[in-house]
Order: sequence, then structure tokens, then C-alpha cells
Amino acid sequence: MAVGPEFRRLEAAWIEGVAAMARAGAQVVVDEVFLGGADSRRRRRRALGGLRVLWVGVRCDGAVAAGREVARGDRIAGMAAPRADPVHRGVVHDLEVDTTHSESMGCARAIAVHVVRSAARLSAGFEGGSPECGPGSPRSGPAAPSRRGPGHSSR
Amino acid sequence: MAVGPEFRRLEAAWIEGVAAMARAGAQVVVDEVFLGGADSRRRRRRALGGLRVLWVGVRCDGAVAAGREVARGDRIAGMAAPRADPVHRGVVHDLEVDTTHSESMGCARAIAVHVVRSAARLSAGFEGGSPECGPGSPRSGPAAPSRRGPGHSSR
Amino acid sequence: MAVGPEFRRLEAAWIEGVAAMARAGAQVVVDEVFLGGADSRRRRRRALGGLRVLWVGVRCDGAVAAGREVARGDRIAGMAAPRADPVHRGVVHDLEVDTTHSESMGCARAIAVHVVRSAARLSAGFEGGSPECGPGSPRSGPAAPSRRGPGHSSR
Amino acid sequence: MAVGPEFRRLEAAWIEGVAAMARAGAQVVVDEVFLGGADSRRRRRRALGGLRVLWVGVRCDGAVAAGREVARGDRIAGMAAPRADPVHRGVVHDLEVDTTHSESMGCARAIAVHVVRSAARLSAGFEGGSPECGPGSPRSGPAAPSRRGPGHSSR
Repeated sequence: MAVGPEFRRLEAAWIEGVAAMARAGAQVVVDEVFLGGADSRRRRRRALGGLRVLWVGVRCDGAVAAGREVARGDRIAGMAAPRADPVHRGVVHDLEVDTTHSESMGCARAIAVHVVRSAARLSAGFEGGSPECGPGSPRSGPAAPSRRGPGHSSR
Repeated sequence: MAVGPEFRRLEAAWIEGVAAMARAGAQVVVDEVFLGGADSRRRRRRALGGLRVLWVGVRCDGAVAAGREVARGDRIAGMAAPRADPVHRGVVHDLEVDTTHSESMGCARAIAVHVVRSAARLSAGFEGGSPECGPGSPRSGPAAPSRRGPGHSSR
Repeated sequence: MAVGPEFRRLEAAWIEGVAAMARAGAQVVVDEVFLGGADSRRRRRRALGGLRVLWVGVRCDGAVAAGREVARGDRIAGMAAPRADPVHRGVVHDLEVDTTHSESMGCARAIAVHVVRSAARLSAGFEGGSPECGPGSPRSGPAAPSRRGPGHSSR
Repeated sequence: MAVGPEFRRLEAAWIEGVAAMARAGAQVVVDEVFLGGADSRRRRRRALGGLRVLWVGVRCDGAVAAGREVARGDRIAGMAAPRADPVHRGVVHDLEVDTTHSESMGCARAIAVHVVRSAARLSAGFEGGSPECGPGSPRSGPAAPSRRGPGHSSR
């Protein structure tokens, strides 16, 4: 799948709009396929600057994804498998779930636990009580990453 | 249908986000039910300030809307009819289409013709060539309304 | 659209099954596109022999059908228009509705009125009280057609 | 969920129709929830007499089914879990698949392998070459079950 300049222009506008919603106080869940891998993430990270973001990688084995594509009945066959890996290439997530062997509900619960814990950690600290995925104070100062520990690199 | 403060908070964030997308260059079509009638529009007009917006009222006779609600099979009965009129109360649109007796395609064509003509008028004027529904220069000065004529009250 | 022998074989099995459901006492509504026009009806009439059937033609202007195909968003464009007329070719229906300018609910009501009246006529006569579209005694004797009048000739 | 006499009447007509389709030569896949457990199967077995039927039990752990009900988004919550076990109560299937830990495609492949093998066994025997799930000669004589082996007892 090749992506042209018009796609990039609209993608940029889309991210700007999502960021504005979050800055205005909405808790936003965005479900996207990073067609550009690490570049896709870089563009989003820049646009979402100053917001608390939880980056969750949702993985699925390519062959399993291809089977689900067929089973769903309303998908164009052959879209899922070739993208299963490239969309994660070079992207370090805060949390990864894998739907290959886990139910959607199990993955959702893992994410919810992560969000709740992060919020608790934050309210115990000095940054104020907003949970992740919503508006937050700008990342500022070296203390922030250390509060979260490795693998949770302060987004 | 009663709307609480949390709905209003999210609605405001939503509109901010849509405005940001348009300001970033995307041509956006928003399809909304103005549960608050003229107030809903006022909130949107404020948030979309400086953008060229075409306000299109999509009307449908309440009894016909109720019948379509049943025919669709996936709607909760009784939602459409009581809202058919209130959502337009006190709202003056730039253009109105009525799906009671017009096909969706006919309505879409009427809107498209309006957009194309507005763009042509603009490119012949001094404001530059952006079509409606996208980013525009701020509304500034008394000349704007007169350029567009009646029924197109400068949004 | 060309139809091969395998399609015909499955179509025949399908009609046999629908007829068996009706003979077993179910009131069945079948919504089909007569790709073969009058031949499609002939095959069905033969299989449904002895059952009371209301044949309803559902018409729609080809251009309007094409527009709705686009508006629905999940249809393959170009399927509706070329079939709008051929599917009715040589077929005389008991009742015709036209969705070009009538709402689905209006068409449904016209059909319901027809079914109720036929049932009333039947229960006042000697054929027994079953409404149309369900199991009935075989059409037998010269009185039957005259009770129904012109334009209601074929079940 | 309580089932009344009208449901049973329509259910019987439905099964009659499906049997007629299969007798007319169609290969039919029926996906049903046996609300009445073993009774539901008994009714179907009687109606499908003389047809070659592969009874496949599709199991899913109740808690997992409940989670999927939520994840699908268009289901009424609470329907799946209480039925996960009762629908299989007293029913011995020819083949069982379990979607709790198996993908739909994997289950489908297991069923396909079973169908192909049964067809091969049949064509090597004296019963004729029809694959399962379609029209077949009546089960007759003691040889039939032994050709199928244990766990494949009921069609």
C-alpha cells in the first residue's frame, strides 16, 4: 500500500484534530494502523506533545489475522497479513497486547489496569490526578520518566 | 432526551477537534443532530470561527422519519419523530434539503452545486480560491456578507 | 449477469425448501430478484403449487435505484439499474408497489391491506380461513378466480 | 428464555424446509442454537431422516462467550453465557470444535477435513459418493456405523 502526499496532508489534519479534542478535555481512544511504522508514531508523538498518551501495541500473528479476515466476511482478503509486522517496526510501545492467543476482553482489561495504575501513581505524585490518554501537563523536567520506570517512557 | 454537563463537555471537545482538523487543511463534512437546536449551532459557530462553513439543514417529515426508522431494522423506534422539528428550531441554514420527497443523491447534488458555485464566486472575488467547508481566512470586515448575498450569511 | 446450471440447481432446491416450510404451516415472506424474469416466476409457481401465494412486484425506477445503491455505501455500483426492468419482464403480479416515490412503510401497508382483505374474502367464502402467503387448499374450481377479480389472477 | 408453541410450530416448519432443500440436492450448512438441548436435536434428526448429516458441536466457554458478546458491540449482553452449556446437554455430536482457544478458521478446517474423509470413505464403500451434509441414502444396515467408528455415531 503506497501512501501519497494527499494522504499525509489529511493524516496530519486528523492528528491535529484528535490532539485538540484531548487538549479540550476529552479522553480519547485512537485505534490506528501505523502504515509508516516508526514514522507514523513520530508524527503522532510530535502532534500530541504535552498530552499524556499511553501507546499500546496491539499485535496479532499474520496468519491468524488472515484467517480472521476471512471469517469476518466483510474484509478484503490479503490486507492483514502483510501489515501484521511492519506496523510495529521500530515502534516501542508502553504496553503490548497480543490478540493471537488473548481475547479482546483480556486485552482491554490489561490496558485498563495499566491506565488505572498510572493514574494512581500520578495522583500520589506531584503532577495532578489526570489519568492517561487525556489532557495532561506538559512533560517537563527529568523527574517524569523516573516516576514511571523503564518501558513507560513518559508519553 | 436530556443532556448533562458531561455530554456538553465532550461535545465542546469534539467541536474543537473538528475545527482543528479544518484549520489544518482538511475538508470536513460533519453530520450532526442539533439536540439543542439554535444553541447547538451557536456553540459550533463560535468554535468554527474564521472557517468557511456551509450550514446545510437536512429536513425530514417526522412521520416519514419514523417509518424509515422501522424499515431500517437496526434503530430504536421513537427516536426520530420527536426530533424532526426541534433540531431545526431557530436555526437558519445556508441551504436546506428535504429527504421527505427527495432522494439522498438529489440532496447530495444540490449541496455539491452550492459548494462549487460558492467556490467559483470566491475565486472570482478577492478572498482566494478555497472552497467552502475547509479552511478560510477569518471573517473580517463588513464586505463579507454582501459578497455572498442573502441566504448565505457568512459562515 | 449470467447464471449457470449449478445456480439453477441450487435455486430449485431453495424453492422446494421454501415451499416445504409453507406447507408445514409457516407464513413465509420471500424477497427475490427474478434474474430470469417470467421464467423465474414460472419455476416458483410450479414449486409452490397448491399454496396460496401473493405475488407482489416491487418496482423502482432504475436511475433512482442506482442512486440508492451509491447512498447505501455497501453495494457494488451498477448492479441495480440494469435489472430494474428485466426482473419484471413478462411477470403479472397480484399487486405492485413502487418504491420510487413511496416509502417502504407505505408499500408495506398496501401489501398488508391486500393480505387482510384476501383473508376476509376467503373466510367469507368456502375455501377456509387461511390468509395468503401460507398454506392453503389447492386452487380448485372455477369460482376461485372470479372471487378475486381482475389483476389478481395468479398465485 | 422460554419457548412457546408458536415457536415450536415455526421451528418445525423451518426444519422441514431445510430438509426439503437438502433432499432436492443442496449442500446445506445450518448453524443453530439448540435451546432445547437434546430435544432440539431429536426433532431435527427425525425431520432429516434419510439424509446424511454431520452433527458438529461448536463449543465455547461461557465466560469467553460473554466477553466476545461485549466486544462485538451489537449483541444483547447476557445471552451467551447461560446458554453455553445447556445447548450441548445430552447431545452427542459427530465432531466437536471449541472456539474458546481455536480460531474460526482452524475449526472450519477441522470440519472440512472430516467431511472430505467421510466422503472418501463413502466412495470407497457401497453407499455412493455423496459427501456429507447433502442428500444421501438412508442409514441402512449394520455396516454403516462400523465404517464410521466410535464418536461418529449419529447422522
